[in-house]
Amino acid sequence: MNIVNNTLLCDFYELTMANGYFELGKGDEIAYFDVFFRKVPDGGGFAIAAGLEQVIEYIKELNFTEDDIAFLRGKGIFSEGFLEYLKGFRFTGDIYAVPEGTPIFPGEPILTVRAPSIEAQFIETFILLALNHQSLIATKANRVVRASAGRAVAEFGSRRAQGADGAILGARAAYIGGCAATACTVSDKVYGIPATGTMAHSWVQMFDSEYEAFVAYCKTYPNNATLLVDTYDVLRSGVPNAIRAFREVLVPMGIRKCGIRLDSGDITYLTKKARKMLDEAGFTDCKIVVSNSPDETITRATILQGAKVASSGVGERLITAKSDPVFGGVYKLVAVEKDGKILPKIKISENPEKITNPHFKKVYRIFDKDNGMATADLMTVYDEVVDESKPLELFDPQQTWKRKVCENFVARELLVPIFKNGECVYRSPSVDEIKAYCKEQIMTLWDEVKRFENPHSYYVDLSEKLWNIKHELLEKGGH
Amino acid sequence: MNIVNNTLLCDFYELTMANGYFELGKGDEIAYFDVFFRKVPDGGGFAIAAGLEQVIEYIKELNFTEDDIAFLRGKGIFSEGFLEYLKGFRFTGDIYAVPEGTPIFPGEPILTVRAPSIEAQFIETFILLALNHQSLIATKANRVVRASAGRAVAEFGSRRAQGADGAILGARAAYIGGCAATACTVSDKVYGIPATGTMAHSWVQMFDSEYEAFVAYCKTYPNNATLLVDTYDVLRSGVPNAIRAFREVLVPMGIRKCGIRLDSGDITYLTKKARKMLDEAGFTDCKIVVSNSPDETITRATILQGAKVASSGVGERLITAKSDPVFGGVYKLVAVEKDGKILPKIKISENPEKITNPHFKKVYRIFDKDNGMATADLMTVYDEVVDESKPLELFDPQQTWKRKVCENFVARELLVPIFKNGECVYRSPSVDEIKAYCKEQIMTLWDEVKRFENPHSYYVDLSEKLWNIKHELLEKGGH
Repeated sequence: MNIVNNTLLCDFYELTMANGYFELGKGDEIAYFDVFFRKVPDGGGFAIAAGLEQVIEYIKELNFTEDDIAFLRGKGIFSEGFLEYLKGFRFTGDIYAVPEGTPIFPGEPILTVRAPSIEAQFIETFILLALNHQSLIATKANRVVRASAGRAVAEFGSRRAQGADGAILGARAAYIGGCAATACTVSDKVYGIPATGTMAHSWVQMFDSEYEAFVAYCKTYPNNATLLVDTYDVLRSGVPNAIRAFREVLVPMGIRKCGIRLDSGDITYLTKKARKMLDEAGFTDCKIVVSNSPDETITRATILQGAKVASSGVGERLITAKSDPVFGGVYKLVAVEKDGKILPKIKISENPEKITNPHFKKVYRIFDKDNGMATADLMTVYDEVVDESKPLELFDPQQTWKRKVCENFVARELLVPIFKNGECVYRSPSVDEIKAYCKEQIMTLWDEVKRFENPHSYYVDLSEKLWNIKHELLEKGGH
Repeated sequence: MNIVNNTLLCDFYELTMANGYFELGKGDEIAYFDVFFRKVPDGGGFAIAAGLEQVIEYIKELNFTEDDIAFLRGKGIFSEGFLEYLKGFRFTGDIYAVPEGTPIFPGEPILTVRAPSIEAQFIETFILLALNHQSLIATKANRVVRASAGRAVAEFGSRRAQGADGAILGARAAYIGGCAATACTVSDKVYGIPATGTMAHSWVQMFDSEYEAFVAYCKTYPNNATLLVDTYDVLRSGVPNAIRAFREVLVPMGIRKCGIRLDSGDITYLTKKARKMLDEAGFTDCKIVVSNSPDETITRATILQGAKVASSGVGERLITAKSDPVFGGVYKLVAVEKDGKILPKIKISENPEKITNPHFKKVYRIFDKDNGMATADLMTVYDEVVDESKPLELFDPQQTWKRKVCENFVARELLVPIFKNGECVYRSPSVDEIKAYCKEQIMTLWDEVKRFENPHSYYVDLSEKLWNIKHELLEKGGH
C-alpha cells in the first residue's frame, strides 16, 4: 500500500467546497462544527465514545504530498492558487472532545471543531469515520460483556472484519468496551490489547487422530492447553479425547489448568454434558470456552438456559456489530464568526430528528452528589457557567412544561480541549486507562438506562438560553 | 501508524499452531486449504468474488520484521528455533483462485492454497479478511445497482465505514460490483475509482442566504453545479433558489447541464414535485440526485412509486452492507500430502452445513453452448478432466436421484493459478477490466438466479468420484 497518511481519505466534496471557499475569499472565516449522533445502535440506552486517538493522529499527520497535489491537479477543477495553498496545509484550529470511554447520548456534541472554514470542513470525513467506527464497536462490545455477566469475552472477529482497520482498531474499541482480549496479533503489538488463541480445526485434522492432535498440543503448550473438541463429534470423541490427553500429559506435570473450546452445535446442551464429563473425570478446573458466533442476545439466552460457559470468543457479530452495523455520527455547522461575534447556525429538515442544535456549546454531565449517579446532560451556550451552589432547573426540550430542579449536584464538563491553535494539548491515555474509565463511568448510569429492552431515555437537555436561540432560528426559517 | 505490512494481522492461533508444527517437525508437511462460503448475504442467489488483489499484495509483502519477532519473543511461548525460522519466513507454495468479479456460489472453493503446513495455515486470517470484506461489498453494490435499473449509483459511505480500509477498499469493491463512482478521494488516487462530490449542507449555511450559496457554487463550478436543496425547505426555498441560480449564472453561459441533490424527506413526493418545478422552469436537463440512505429495497420502492431520480449516492447501507454485514467465508483443511500422495481430509460438525467438501479440487462452470448461459458448477477431484465432447451427467449431492445430462456445453475452470512455488504468476487486471468482466459474467446467469426474493438455487454439484470420497470419509467418522 502506498498510502502514507490519511489526508486524502476525505469525501471529494470537502475539496470542492475548500476550493470554493478559497476562491471566494471565505477560507479564513471561522466556522464551528459539532459531531453528534441521533440514535443508539441496537435500541440501547447509551453509547460509548471511542476513536479519538486516531483522530488526533490524523490531525497531526494532515499534509498533502506532492503526489496528492499532482493527483488533484489532474482532476482539472481546482485553481492553482488553491493547490499552492494545499502545499502548506495543516490544521490551525481548536478541537474539543469527550474522552474515549465516556458514555454518550443522542443529540449532544461529542466533538467540536473551531477553525478557519476550509480546515474545519476538510477534516469532516475522517473524524466521522474514526469516531463512528470505534464508538460502534465499543458500544457493541459493552453490550456483549454486560450480557456475559462476569464471564470473560474475547474478540475473535478479524477474519470477518470490514477491512484491516476494521480488525485492528475494532479490537482496540472492543477492549475499551470491556473485552478481555483479542485474537488479532497486531492489535497486541501496536495497542497492547492482549492477544490470545490456541488451535483451529485444521490442527486436529493435521494429525492421524484427534487424540494424537490433543496430546501434541498439550505437550507443546502444557500451561495453555485449550483443546477444540468439535472437529468430529463433541461428546463421543472430542471431550473423551481431551480428558485422555489432559490425564496423560498435564496430570503427571501437576497441571490442573486446562480448557476445551466449542465452536458449533447446541451450546447449552453440549456444555452441560461436557461439564458433567469433565467434572466426573476430575477436571473441575477445566474451563469451557465457546465461540459459536455469539452476541449479547445469544449469550444471554444460553446463560439463562444454564449453559456451562466460562468465557467466550465473539467473532463476526461483534467485529461488524452485525445486528446494527452503523453508528450514525454526523458533522454539522453550528456557528460562524463574523466581526468577532459568534453567529449560531441551524440545519432545518423535513425529518424533524435531522434538525440540529445550533451554536458553540458546552455539555455538562450532572451527577447527584448523594450517590454519584448521572442525572442528566445539559447543553449550554459556550459562555454559560453552571453554578453548583445554586439549584439548577432542567426542562424537556420537547415538552417544556416537564421541569425538574436539581440540588446537591456536581456538574462536570464533558468536552475537553484536544487541540488549541493547531497544537495538541491532550495527553492520550493508554487503552487500559480508557477501559478502566469506561467501566467506572458506566457505573454512574442507572440500571434503567443500561437495560437492553426499552431502556430509559437519559435526559439530554438545553439551557434556557440555548433553547431560546434555537427556537428563534427555527421561527426565522433558519436564517 | 507504524504498521509496515499486514504480516501480524493474523489470529494469534496461527502462530501457536505454527510454533507447534515447527516444534513437532510437521512444518514442512504439505497441506491444502480451501476458502469457501456457506450463504449468500441478503438471501441472494449469487455473490461476487473480490479482494484477490489485496491477497496478492499481502502474500508478496509477507515478512516478519525484527520488531515483530521481538514482540513475539516477549509473549514467552515461542521457541527460539521458531523465532529464528520466522526471520526468513516467506510464502513458497501455490495459490489458485477465482478472478475478481466472478459470480460465486455457496460451497465451492473460491481460493485454494497448497503449501507447507505452517505457511498454509498462517495466511488464513488475512486471506479471509480481504475476500470476505470485498466480496461482501461487491455483492451488495451489485444488488443496489441492479435495483437502480440503469440509474447511476455512486458510493458515498466513507464516513460510516468500519475503518479506513472499509472506506478505501469498500469503494473499490463497490466499483467492481457496478457502482459508477465514489466519494472517497484516495480510492480515486490509488485505485482509479472516479471520485465525485459537490457540496454539504454546511456550504449553504456558510452564506447569508441559500440563494447566495447557490449562486456562489454555480459561479465556481458552472460545469458541475449540483445544488443541495434540503438545508431549509426543499420545495419552498431549495428548488426555487436553485432555479434562480441556474437561470442567473448558467443560462447566460449557455450551460444546460445542472443538478439538484436531495438528502432527506419523502424522496418520491419531493422528486416528483421538484421535477415538475424544474421542467416548468425549462430545466428539463437538470438531474435529480438522491442520497437519503438508500439501499436496494428502498431504491426499488421509490422507483416503483414513480420517484424522479436520475442517480443516487448510497452511503451507510452499502459501505457496511447494513442489512447483512458479514460475508462468512471460511478456510478449511481439505487435504494433506503423505509420501507424495494426497490424502483428503474432512471436517464433520453437529451443524450439517458446516461439513466440508474434502480433497484438492477443481471447479468447472458449465455453460450452455446454445445461449451462453451458466447451467451449473461442478467440483471434481484435481486429477479429473471434464470432456466437452461427451455428455456430462450432473446429480444433486443431497438428493442423488435427481440427475441431469448436459450436452453441447463448454466447461471453464474457475480457479486459475495465482502463485506457483511462491512466485506470483497472475497479472492483476485493472479495476475497470474487473468491473467489465463482472458485468459480462452476471449476464450469463438466468434471471431466476438474479431475483431478490427466493432466487433459484444455482446447482453446485460434486463429481461422482468426489462424492464417493466424501461419503467414504463421512462413514469413517472423518478419519
